[in-house]
Amino acid sequence: MNLMNIRERIIQEASESFKTFGIKSVTMDALANQLGMSKRTIYEAFSDKEELLMAVLSRMAQEQKEIVKKVLDESENSIFAIFKMLEFSRDNFQYLNPSFQADLKKYHHDLLIKSEENIEMPDYRNHYLVIERGIEEGLFRKDLNTELINRGLYNLGRSMMDNDQYPYEKFTRREVISNIFINYLRGISTLKGLELIDRLEEKF
Amino acid sequence: MNLMNIRERIIQEASESFKTFGIKSVTMDALANQLGMSKRTIYEAFSDKEELLMAVLSRMAQEQKEIVKKVLDESENSIFAIFKMLEFSRDNFQYLNPSFQADLKKYHHDLLIKSEENIEMPDYRNHYLVIERGIEEGLFRKDLNTELINRGLYNLGRSMMDNDQYPYEKFTRREVISNIFINYLRGISTLKGLELIDRLEEKF
Repeated sequence: MNLMNIRERIIQEASESFKTFGIKSVTMDALANQLGMSKRTIYEAFSDKEELLMAVLSRMAQEQKEIVKKVLDESENSIFAIFKMLEFSRDNFQYLNPSFQADLKKYHHDLLIKSEENIEMPDYRNHYLVIERGIEEGLFRKDLNTELINRGLYNLGRSMMDNDQYPYEKFTRREVISNIFINYLRGISTLKGLELIDRLEEKF
Repeated sequence: MNLMNIRERIIQEASESFKTFGIKSVTMDALANQLGMSKRTIYEAFSDKEELLMAVLSRMAQEQKEIVKKVLDESENSIFAIFKMLEFSRDNFQYLNPSFQADLKKYHHDLLIKSEENIEMPDYRNHYLVIERGIEEGLFRKDLNTELINRGLYNLGRSMMDNDQYPYEKFTRREVISNIFINYLRGISTLKGLELIDRLEEKF
């Protein structure tokens, strides 16, 4: 097996383990065991856990970008597209251990900032498209600053996973999505957009 | 002058200096000079800059709480009250050096988390009241989870000062307030509430 395949397998396994158990509790030893590899083999591919985690975050961002693109291409209008993305993240969350986000924020704060700068920013462009499209479709108001709304949606989306802002033990993600994200969506919508949101939220 | 008065004067001066120049660039030496005190006198009142900063943050939170209470008591309805608070923070921002928030986030991250836990939380209660009142007044929708909306307004309010989320060199705070905060407010409003918001936003 060449080095590329080994890297791939390690990223894949680390990604699954981090999502399931959080980051801190997954040791490099446990990963090596899991993969049936020596720890040395892992360290030949990644100099430390930070580098591995960075690769995992890049991968997750890449996958998310592809999904966003696919959803946008296949949806009949912008509000449909946003609801499909919300459903996707809600379903994904059921399998994401809250420790994942908490560990990231607590123990890898520098990496989180670096990854936001390097990885997540490109996603901005996708949201940008969906807002412009919504305005053309008459679903979002014309007087919006699309660049700001773009950031607003992105930041709200991220904040919903933040256990400090919306503790998992107090609120279901479904409630958070409804009260935080969908209400913001209402706020940027025209009356036509509002009607569609009411209809979609009922089924959500 | 007794120790209490000295503490007061130091907090007052540090608060002004931090707001004007940011936290990092204000040294304890500069503060001592400014106050016409020896550095030793400052260190008798506060063991280090962190402790002084914590006292400054507590003071700012306390002042803000009093203003919120006053505004709530004196406003004819909940949306009026929220707009008055927005105007207050917009006016206050013109005099707040962006370095203040940036330094807090970058160099005093632990303190920021601690201060959020200890100081700012009580503010939740005030927002809570304004939402409940808005629902009674028929300005906000009945199907809201008030505890979540409360946190939403609070978190959005804080995010607007975050230079990473909404860079000062790209957006005026006026634009951010309109696109981020007021749009969220629209999203939780009834049609009657929306009409009032349109009217108030024009004058804002």
